[in-house]
Amino acid sequence: MGAVKSKRMPRAVREQQMLDAAVRTFGQRGYRAASMDEIAELAGVSKPLVYLYLNSKEDLFTACIRREAKALTEAVRAGVRTGLPADRQLWDGLQAFFTHTAENPDGWTVLHLQARTHGEPFAAEVAAMREELVAFVTELIAVAAREAHRNPSLPEGEVAGLAEALVGAAESLAAWANATAGVTAREAAATLMNFAWAGLGNLMDGHPWSPPAEADAVAARAVT
Amino acid sequence: MGAVKSKRMPRAVREQQMLDAAVRTFGQRGYRAASMDEIAELAGVSKPLVYLYLNSKEDLFTACIRREAKALTEAVRAGVRTGLPADRQLWDGLQAFFTHTAENPDGWTVLHLQARTHGEPFAAEVAAMREELVAFVTELIAVAAREAHRNPSLPEGEVAGLAEALVGAAESLAAWANATAGVTAREAAATLMNFAWAGLGNLMDGHPWSPPAEADAVAARAVT
Repeated sequence: MGAVKSKRMPRAVREQQMLDAAVRTFGQRGYRAASMDEIAELAGVSKPLVYLYLNSKEDLFTACIRREAKALTEAVRAGVRTGLPADRQLWDGLQAFFTHTAENPDGWTVLHLQARTHGEPFAAEVAAMREELVAFVTELIAVAAREAHRNPSLPEGEVAGLAEALVGAAESLAAWANATAGVTAREAAATLMNFAWAGLGNLMDGHPWSPPAEADAVAARAVT
Repeated sequence: MGAVKSKRMPRAVREQQMLDAAVRTFGQRGYRAASMDEIAELAGVSKPLVYLYLNSKEDLFTACIRREAKALTEAVRAGVRTGLPADRQLWDGLQAFFTHTAENPDGWTVLHLQARTHGEPFAAEVAAMREELVAFVTELIAVAAREAHRNPSLPEGEVAGLAEALVGAAESLAAWANATAGVTAREAAATLMNFAWAGLGNLMDGHPWSPPAEADAVAARAVT
């Protein structure tokens, strides 16, 4: 990274350098083990300046979460062009998601792991981002279901459940892809698209998976 | 609940009562807000006895995570009978999973939310349980892929990715089902089975979802 020390740099630029250094340090060391000394050194500024700009380690971490959450949701939205068929929009969105998480592995670790592993108020910041992604996917599935001629009325509750499942699958897969050598963003997106769309597509065409009769009876007993 | 105060109760029984009370309190109040006074009162024992048996709030929370993680993985394994077709095994496993998380909402909150939201060493306990579930699903998909005659060799990396996606989807969906009125365990299991199996089934039959040509080119640029 090698940030340059300069007294003439505008505050906004310096703050971004501090956040770059903080995301990298929090992502690699974890919230507790990360030291403000290390972050200041990596950003090429003095520790008092970090405190002056970002106030405390907790506030710095919150600022990291907000910046990374905003960058991720913006990347996904920017990757999708409305007006295209739903499967194409989902494919574009998934590629944008996995490309962003692959290119910003420390940012993703901060969002997916660190922010949820270190209590409130951090977890609430990530929950807000997650809700936005779920809402986005819910709308995508609802539009696709309305477009599908054979089964125009996929129930609302089912759509919400499918969106939750898809977002949970994407989160899980992004963490796995970043931790597994040789898995590209495109491969991760294709894996999820295969998993999700072939299934969703069948569902919208009125071809759900049918439970076997015996399992049905067992299930009925289990849930009553 | 209404635990009965009795001096003749064996230690193991008392400990389970304390853990019952602790899971309920941690699940509903959160780790930090939960008080040892409240847990002791709910268990019908004195606070010193809780400390004598479980040592500290942290150790008590760890004991809750271990017990709930063991109960969940055992419920899933018990729900699945080997020797049946893979889709039937997955359906049985998903029903066992969603039935268990629906019947033990506080236990699931402790595992999925509280344990991951309050740092180490708790998060590591849940990670171990998750690895076991992923390994179980990976094996299920690998067996199904070998059985499928049209595409006997789904690549190992693809199988691992699909298992990660499926477990992430199940976790996400269980939290949503418990938070959403009127969603039964059977409906949650059916939603995920529809989502997952129709997709996986196509994949194993050699019918992956095909990306559009233009998206392909965009993706190739994005990941290089």
